[in-house]
Amino acid sequence: MRVSYDELHQTLLRALLGVGFERGRADLCARLFAETDLDGVYTHGLKRFPRFLEQIRRGLVDIHASPELITGAGALERWDGRRGPGNLNAHDSMRRAIALSREHGVGCVALRETNHWMRGGSYGWQAAEAGRVGVCWTNTMPNLPPWGATQARLGNNPLVIAVPRAPEHVVLDMAMSQFSYGALAAYRARGEQLPVDGGFDLDGRLTRDPAAIEESARPLPIGFWKGSGLALMLDLTAALLAGGLATHQIPADAVEESGVSQVFLAFDLSALGGQEAASSLADEIVKHFKNDSAEGEAVRYPGERVLNVRRENLERGIPVDPEVWEQLK
Amino acid sequence: MRVSYDELHQTLLRALLGVGFERGRADLCARLFAETDLDGVYTHGLKRFPRFLEQIRRGLVDIHASPELITGAGALERWDGRRGPGNLNAHDSMRRAIALSREHGVGCVALRETNHWMRGGSYGWQAAEAGRVGVCWTNTMPNLPPWGATQARLGNNPLVIAVPRAPEHVVLDMAMSQFSYGALAAYRARGEQLPVDGGFDLDGRLTRDPAAIEESARPLPIGFWKGSGLALMLDLTAALLAGGLATHQIPADAVEESGVSQVFLAFDLSALGGQEAASSLADEIVKHFKNDSAEGEAVRYPGERVLNVRRENLERGIPVDPEVWEQLK
Repeated sequence: MRVSYDELHQTLLRALLGVGFERGRADLCARLFAETDLDGVYTHGLKRFPRFLEQIRRGLVDIHASPELITGAGALERWDGRRGPGNLNAHDSMRRAIALSREHGVGCVALRETNHWMRGGSYGWQAAEAGRVGVCWTNTMPNLPPWGATQARLGNNPLVIAVPRAPEHVVLDMAMSQFSYGALAAYRARGEQLPVDGGFDLDGRLTRDPAAIEESARPLPIGFWKGSGLALMLDLTAALLAGGLATHQIPADAVEESGVSQVFLAFDLSALGGQEAASSLADEIVKHFKNDSAEGEAVRYPGERVLNVRRENLERGIPVDPEVWEQLK
Repeated sequence: MRVSYDELHQTLLRALLGVGFERGRADLCARLFAETDLDGVYTHGLKRFPRFLEQIRRGLVDIHASPELITGAGALERWDGRRGPGNLNAHDSMRRAIALSREHGVGCVALRETNHWMRGGSYGWQAAEAGRVGVCWTNTMPNLPPWGATQARLGNNPLVIAVPRAPEHVVLDMAMSQFSYGALAAYRARGEQLPVDGGFDLDGRLTRDPAAIEESARPLPIGFWKGSGLALMLDLTAALLAGGLATHQIPADAVEESGVSQVFLAFDLSALGGQEAASSLADEIVKHFKNDSAEGEAVRYPGERVLNVRRENLERGIPVDPEVWEQLK
């Protein structure tokens, strides 16, 4: 089942107005959800909307709260998200980092007491569309065992890096686990094995069987010990810069997960001059990375799949889960 | 064979004075090399020193060149490394980023036309010792095939993230390849298999055999497609911010590799207040990550091995390759 972008956006907007959002905030929040599905990141859009409404009902997300400045030091600011909607808070924070970069060349907003930002890539696209190199990351509840451990004591702490390029930006949006639980469930549902080892089974052996990993709750960090270390650094830097909660202080429950810490960085290339040269160098780097001429190779740059799906979904409509869709309407 | 830190430092210092370095620069350069061996990163210290001298002889490294400011925009500056010694240039750049962070909360130096920074971790420790959260990365010559490709079109682009903590800092220093060529050679020399898949063999199968990966020249990026994407973003951001060379423009030869691009970021936690709370939170996060009580687990945080080796080498002397050592003396 497919629906148009406008229909999806309007339907989400009505639902948000229905639970009491102000009009402008409802519109942006609905847009961020709808664009996530438009771009094919189906795990973080409509599918997650019922959980978002549940978090509002439980008082974990305060729909009227906006970030509040705690302390600023020029290009570096610390804000309190006051447990507002995670995607609105994140969008606000990247907008503020972009504004700071206009003034200082680089801008950094550290945000505490916020909520799940849904699709992290959204704030990368936001930065790139403003002509900025954007970097942001978030910590999460514990959902990933450190390398050498069996219990989830790390978050999968997604990291986003975006580079503006005409006509199409390059946006990396990656969690520190090799496969998310959503991806594991999708492989299992299709009866497929993972393309590479994704975690351990109950006997502590590396496996490509998604069900065995769900059972052991031992997914792999990317690069084994390397991603384990990187996830720790992302938690440390987010919590310390934001003065907020670290992963081990966040409830390990997909609905209760609240109060996370995030960092948003924007770099203003135009402050350094030669923006056209930069865009053309970016294009050259990506072309060389892809090297389309190499036989039998399918090398995709970060964000390339998103752009293809976006075009297809704009034309054909966005696939929606009929059950979630009916419930929402 | 082991030598004391002072003997190693003095011997390197004499060699640098011998090829014409000014005294102060020779001293710092020798210290950065000697500390690398002291910390057990033997691939990037004394062992690499002959190659460094060869680069000086060939005119790839200009021992008298220092970075020059190209353009500044408040907290973001672009510098030209003028092909000076890579470790001195990097140390200068992190020092400048630290100074900028004192003024602006965050400081960023993008450096073009520099040389191999030797051990990237050095500049992470430098930031942490100055009480800063430090982040830096470099591009390199092409030495890693993108995911889906067979030819090396990416650099392994090391990324460093450092967090100050009393009494011991947390410093991640990781390349985007799962194993460096140095690591592959070491495993092969010991007749050992890799602990996890490290690349492809000539038939395109994943393998733990280090010799097979050296033969195919197809090491794996960390996390397969994920590290491939991250390495691309590090090259893009370094080249664009520095206005310098990208990986595909850097000669793919370990001696000829020159003119790389780097980024140095420092964040001043004290500008946000509550530095003691930050240090105690960092400690709590690391303790929770390690969770020493868990049976049979050996979870190490980034930098932990370095600290253990540093203590041992200070006490027992630093292991040196007798051949390189005699040649140097």
